[in-house]
Amino acid sequence: MRNILIIGAGKSSASLIAYLLNKSNSENFTITIGDVNLDAANTIINNHSNANTVLLDIFNDEQREKAINNASVVISMLPARFHLIVAKTCLKLKKHLVTASYVSNEMKLLNKEVISNNLVFMNEIGLDPGIDHMSAMKVIDSIRDNGGEMLLFESFCGGLVAPQCDDNLWNYKFTWNPRNVVLAGQGGTAKFIQEGKYKYIPYQKLFRRTEILNIDGYGKFEAYPNRDSLNYKYEYGLDNISTLYRGTIRRVGFSRAWNIFVQLGMTDDTYTIQNSETISYREFTNLFLAYNPYDSVELKLRHYLKIDQDDIVWEKLLELDIFNSKKIVGLKNATPAQILQKILQDKWTLNKNDKDMIVMQHLFGFEKNGKKQQIESSMVCIGDDQTYTAMAKTVGLPVGIAALKILNGEISSPGVQIPTNKNVYNPILKELEENGIIFKEKMVPYLGYNPEHIGG
Amino acid sequence: MRNILIIGAGKSSASLIAYLLNKSNSENFTITIGDVNLDAANTIINNHSNANTVLLDIFNDEQREKAINNASVVISMLPARFHLIVAKTCLKLKKHLVTASYVSNEMKLLNKEVISNNLVFMNEIGLDPGIDHMSAMKVIDSIRDNGGEMLLFESFCGGLVAPQCDDNLWNYKFTWNPRNVVLAGQGGTAKFIQEGKYKYIPYQKLFRRTEILNIDGYGKFEAYPNRDSLNYKYEYGLDNISTLYRGTIRRVGFSRAWNIFVQLGMTDDTYTIQNSETISYREFTNLFLAYNPYDSVELKLRHYLKIDQDDIVWEKLLELDIFNSKKIVGLKNATPAQILQKILQDKWTLNKNDKDMIVMQHLFGFEKNGKKQQIESSMVCIGDDQTYTAMAKTVGLPVGIAALKILNGEISSPGVQIPTNKNVYNPILKELEENGIIFKEKMVPYLGYNPEHIGG
Repeated sequence: MRNILIIGAGKSSASLIAYLLNKSNSENFTITIGDVNLDAANTIINNHSNANTVLLDIFNDEQREKAINNASVVISMLPARFHLIVAKTCLKLKKHLVTASYVSNEMKLLNKEVISNNLVFMNEIGLDPGIDHMSAMKVIDSIRDNGGEMLLFESFCGGLVAPQCDDNLWNYKFTWNPRNVVLAGQGGTAKFIQEGKYKYIPYQKLFRRTEILNIDGYGKFEAYPNRDSLNYKYEYGLDNISTLYRGTIRRVGFSRAWNIFVQLGMTDDTYTIQNSETISYREFTNLFLAYNPYDSVELKLRHYLKIDQDDIVWEKLLELDIFNSKKIVGLKNATPAQILQKILQDKWTLNKNDKDMIVMQHLFGFEKNGKKQQIESSMVCIGDDQTYTAMAKTVGLPVGIAALKILNGEISSPGVQIPTNKNVYNPILKELEENGIIFKEKMVPYLGYNPEHIGG
Repeated sequence: MRNILIIGAGKSSASLIAYLLNKSNSENFTITIGDVNLDAANTIINNHSNANTVLLDIFNDEQREKAINNASVVISMLPARFHLIVAKTCLKLKKHLVTASYVSNEMKLLNKEVISNNLVFMNEIGLDPGIDHMSAMKVIDSIRDNGGEMLLFESFCGGLVAPQCDDNLWNYKFTWNPRNVVLAGQGGTAKFIQEGKYKYIPYQKLFRRTEILNIDGYGKFEAYPNRDSLNYKYEYGLDNISTLYRGTIRRVGFSRAWNIFVQLGMTDDTYTIQNSETISYREFTNLFLAYNPYDSVELKLRHYLKIDQDDIVWEKLLELDIFNSKKIVGLKNATPAQILQKILQDKWTLNKNDKDMIVMQHLFGFEKNGKKQQIESSMVCIGDDQTYTAMAKTVGLPVGIAALKILNGEISSPGVQIPTNKNVYNPILKELEENGIIFKEKMVPYLGYNPEHIGG
């Protein structure tokens, strides 16, 4: 039996399914798509002879067990919280599992049993987490194998609009879940290390503490820090590293303008606005400004946040129509974050022919034979269209490649794992390259943060 | 049997116990103090002939039931979360109850049974909540009784250091729980109404949106908004009021300087700092600033928060020694908020002879016979010493007065209640006046926010 079951046929599965269908003849296997919505699944497989669909509600024990029992490898593309129920059935029926999500603690606890059954439960094998792990570990391992000692690791990733469709003042459109963009940074204080110093940035300053990066051929970008940089000490074996930083990429100037929403309180998702359905965009903006009968909403906002009359951020606000008194929010019992999302979606939704872009860059500083050096590794992926987006490709391809390699026994070390081992990342990165997901590595002068060891 | 049981003999009970002991001969009753720590309780009663103490752990059913059974009225001065277990035993043994805490939902659910047993469960009868309810409702009821319609209600309260001991640049010392001061404003977005417009202020702007107030004889103060102003619509029957605002009082300039800690992230209580025990105050400050080997911590902070060299807030920071590299935090696994509290306690702890001060002010705007008018009602209470503090007096006296009036049947309407009814607040306010807690009311021109009904 050579069958791969894909649970969840959402938008993010398009490239995954295309990849597997494309390989199904030469590699002699079939795929089954299990979903609660058979229409979407059938559209995707388009009567392909090596594919079929099956109605699958993962909370229906019979449906779940039957579908999993008919597979050799199971891919769960469900939201992360649903992986555990799939994992437990995979364990019971002795099937391999692949997910693109962070390993939960509950998933970790299955490790012993997974090993004793000689199964591979591969997680964090999408884009971020996924491609970031593999492309970083490849360079880190090679530095160490050559006798280098890691000093610095910085890693940046972002989903943006492709340059040829980048036509608004924010240089940004929604290419993935807009809600996550609005709530970005609210999960906890950002923590990282620079030259051995721990640094902590609260939400209210997150978008004012950006780093600038350059990607050859694509120009300047900025990144605001992620909350979880310290975890990577353990994940990547970087226990004694002096600089460790992860950030989210935007075009330069985005964060400074976004900070206006943060300061106003428009990204708050913890309470609902009175009468949110009937207020205008202008009234929404005015909720966060002091009452004054004489001054306009515009002047109050300018004065409150000290925005000069010729500051470009003002044009960015105007572009979003936040002072429009005719546009009505139209959402019942909505939080500020939900209303802001609606306002942004009016302007930041991709046009029919727009393409998205994924940008990733790692910086590796290290010392070898007493000499400090730095490697810069960058990847840019542009979407084909709005089905085979850069996001769908970079999430789906590594998942599909890993699943097929597990099916073929090329990836076989058992356990609940992430792709940080050579035996896993090397063949996958190679095949990603063949599919146009290519990291360009180059030596650059060691920049670090403190080449002369001065001060604090 | 005329016995009042006071559960919990903490610092805040001093004035309460003194008041009751002082009344015990003329009013012919005894008091019992139940506490887990008999030493403190015995010190407080000092062999008074009408008082005794009893070992009382409220989780010990036998001790609790026995102590409550020997009383006519029970006062719980425990932390709010422990009131319910006391309340249930009071109900079972048919005893009246008095607390200075907000009514919990669980407490509310006892209302029917409390009424059917003809008991009084009086809550929110301390300072804030307590004196604020009574002094506000007195004026609101009188405005309504005279045919006025309420337009505006603003209420401010704060615990400060008395003017004669106000000798630091912040014009502030800790006169109550320091932890609450450090965490102030983090419980949720501040919500209020001004001229019919809802206004929402997030934590990151809370201390930059202060209102200024004057108290005759005491000068200027500022207030930052509380989170819960909208609740008072229902509590006080102000359903159609156009301005409703509650705030916390500080001396002018405190909030602007405090905002520096908020912006840095020093008030965060959600994570612990690495190696917090061994870092210096200077290193603590540097955790929240960008890494740079060439610049001093001072210059980085000035630049980050745009503090001019001659700005008084800088002197306030220096006064707290936050750049001191010799002073060590010395707290294990401490959060930023815990460390900041320690730094502040070095400087803001009351000296032996310092006295505290409670300040409260209400503004009532109303329309009567087509004319808009405003009443200003202010109260200042200065502590006697560090036992009979202004805080202990303003919390303890209304509790004691209410308990005695319940014992005497002067307050007898049954139910789980707060002191918003005339029959309750009038006699209590009168006796508070006799004890020096006096509201000065005066007519002032109607200020409102929009006397000419212009704009938005």
